[in-house]
Amino acid sequence: MQTSLLNTPWSTTHEVFETVRTISRETPLLTSAALDELAGCRLFIKAESLQHTGSFKLRGAFYRLKNLDPAQREIGVVAFSSGNFAQGLARAGQILGVPVTIVMPHDVPQMKVLGTKRYGARVVFSEPDGRPREMVAAETAANLAESGHLTLLHPFNDSDVVLGHSSLGTELLQQFEALHEDQPMDALLVPAGGGGLAAGIALALRSHQSTTRLIAVEPSGYDDLARSLAAGERHRNETASRTLCDALQAVSPGPVPFSVLLETLSGALSVTDEDVRQGMRAALEHLKLVLEPSGASALAAALVAKRRGVDLGSRVCVVCSGGNIAAADFAKLVAEEPRH
Amino acid sequence: MQTSLLNTPWSTTHEVFETVRTISRETPLLTSAALDELAGCRLFIKAESLQHTGSFKLRGAFYRLKNLDPAQREIGVVAFSSGNFAQGLARAGQILGVPVTIVMPHDVPQMKVLGTKRYGARVVFSEPDGRPREMVAAETAANLAESGHLTLLHPFNDSDVVLGHSSLGTELLQQFEALHEDQPMDALLVPAGGGGLAAGIALALRSHQSTTRLIAVEPSGYDDLARSLAAGERHRNETASRTLCDALQAVSPGPVPFSVLLETLSGALSVTDEDVRQGMRAALEHLKLVLEPSGASALAAALVAKRRGVDLGSRVCVVCSGGNIAAADFAKLVAEEPRH
Repeated sequence: MQTSLLNTPWSTTHEVFETVRTISRETPLLTSAALDELAGCRLFIKAESLQHTGSFKLRGAFYRLKNLDPAQREIGVVAFSSGNFAQGLARAGQILGVPVTIVMPHDVPQMKVLGTKRYGARVVFSEPDGRPREMVAAETAANLAESGHLTLLHPFNDSDVVLGHSSLGTELLQQFEALHEDQPMDALLVPAGGGGLAAGIALALRSHQSTTRLIAVEPSGYDDLARSLAAGERHRNETASRTLCDALQAVSPGPVPFSVLLETLSGALSVTDEDVRQGMRAALEHLKLVLEPSGASALAAALVAKRRGVDLGSRVCVVCSGGNIAAADFAKLVAEEPRH
Repeated sequence: MQTSLLNTPWSTTHEVFETVRTISRETPLLTSAALDELAGCRLFIKAESLQHTGSFKLRGAFYRLKNLDPAQREIGVVAFSSGNFAQGLARAGQILGVPVTIVMPHDVPQMKVLGTKRYGARVVFSEPDGRPREMVAAETAANLAESGHLTLLHPFNDSDVVLGHSSLGTELLQQFEALHEDQPMDALLVPAGGGGLAAGIALALRSHQSTTRLIAVEPSGYDDLARSLAAGERHRNETASRTLCDALQAVSPGPVPFSVLLETLSGALSVTDEDVRQGMRAALEHLKLVLEPSGASALAAALVAKRRGVDLGSRVCVVCSGGNIAAADFAKLVAEEPRH
């Protein structure tokens, strides 16, 4: 199963793309002379923050729900998420008429609850009991699945979710091709938490026999993927540190995406909170895009790479994966002048 | 000449569109369920802030330069602008190989100077002499034009600039058509300063025999267009008041765009600074777009219209015309909670 996912043929990634694009927005591939100057190479920015629901998560969620069997569709699905997967899944369910239940910790910001309910999902709050809130919420979701015969969905450790995300990679490759550059894309940088998006894009690149180097970007202190790649097996994060990139805090790569990434990633880079803030400011001023910290991490890595002795090549694509952030939080992060 | 501009046929607006699109970005037409809730109608957002150089100005500038005769092209052009027209014109000149000189007041923010020089333009600063700085800069530009045989360009009072902007309207109409809505667009809201963009869009609508009502949006205190329309002749603003919308502070509509707008506008709305801040916050949170105040004014008007007893219909398109703003300024404007 995992081997077959890794070797997904072009005919499949193409079919996935055709399926997902019926409901996704073709998000623009942007360029900016000012960013090119900052990075010291040509940058191509995939502005997936402009996707419906504000992140790429809609793609995988839609493809996953589309492949439910009729009985599962009717009864519905449940997932634990307080983030972008919640909204993406809610919207996918709304489109396909699949009842969606989302479990969130009881103290999640109201904006995330409203964002999920807007797309017609039922939100259930997990009650605190002293254990880590993610653990409690995950258990609540599993219990709801069992008692209600709901299909329990995982935000990234799922072949169909990964396949759905591959549509972003296919779209990006097509857009790059349409630019008629005389040279191929040297590197493609993608934010990585659980690894679902990176693995999906890897499948698109591989099925297109692309020579582009795929590089995952993680927050400092959450470099589980880099250590897992080095070790050849999944490692966990030390969870003591904190990061601005709340959507990239997965404890370790999921086994399903990791099976793909181990064979396809050319490397992993990490970015500090300050790098991420600079990336957000650069996106604001030069791309006119609002990015959440996680969504800006790959851009942040591209902007500091050369200065840190990392040569990404002369044509670098970065995925800006999401833009879900409250105005006040965004303002605080971009207001301060750079610290160096 | 003015009559023929007003009656520009479809064949011409189509040709203009085909010319401009060779160098412009097709900016997305976005929708958001959350914004629809706030506005009480369906909104279609033309995200022209994502245009190259961060505003629609590139369109008119490019079309204007494209129509210079060979001798004019070689010698070059000069214009007074400290804003978006400077960057749009500089970029258009860079593409076409036309030397561009921009006159700016001596105390303009450094970011605007750098933004213009990045596209290869020469920047000349006008020296203060006690008179209003715009007057001095305009005079400096006229003197440079005369002494250097440069073609003096006006940012909005120019038929070819207006025609170039019509490409935004044509693009928008095509994008709306591609959505296969079962009803036409009821109203189209566009920010208005000198009126160049509004007039350009009017030409596109008229040449497509569109039934959509075109409505200009002005900052409170700068309602020269509304008063000019009511009077049937151009009126001036009282310049004592201030507005966040620095790009919409034209003293009065240009005669060229006004000749079009007098026959085509269905009305004009005005927005307060607080409306504009709310529009910017809404664009940040629900569209993930960075808009400068002027660029958010039409969206701001759409969001408050129903509450103020203005019925725009059930399908309303708004043009978000620009996103050029420094990170610190943007942060300050969107940080504060709504005041009501």
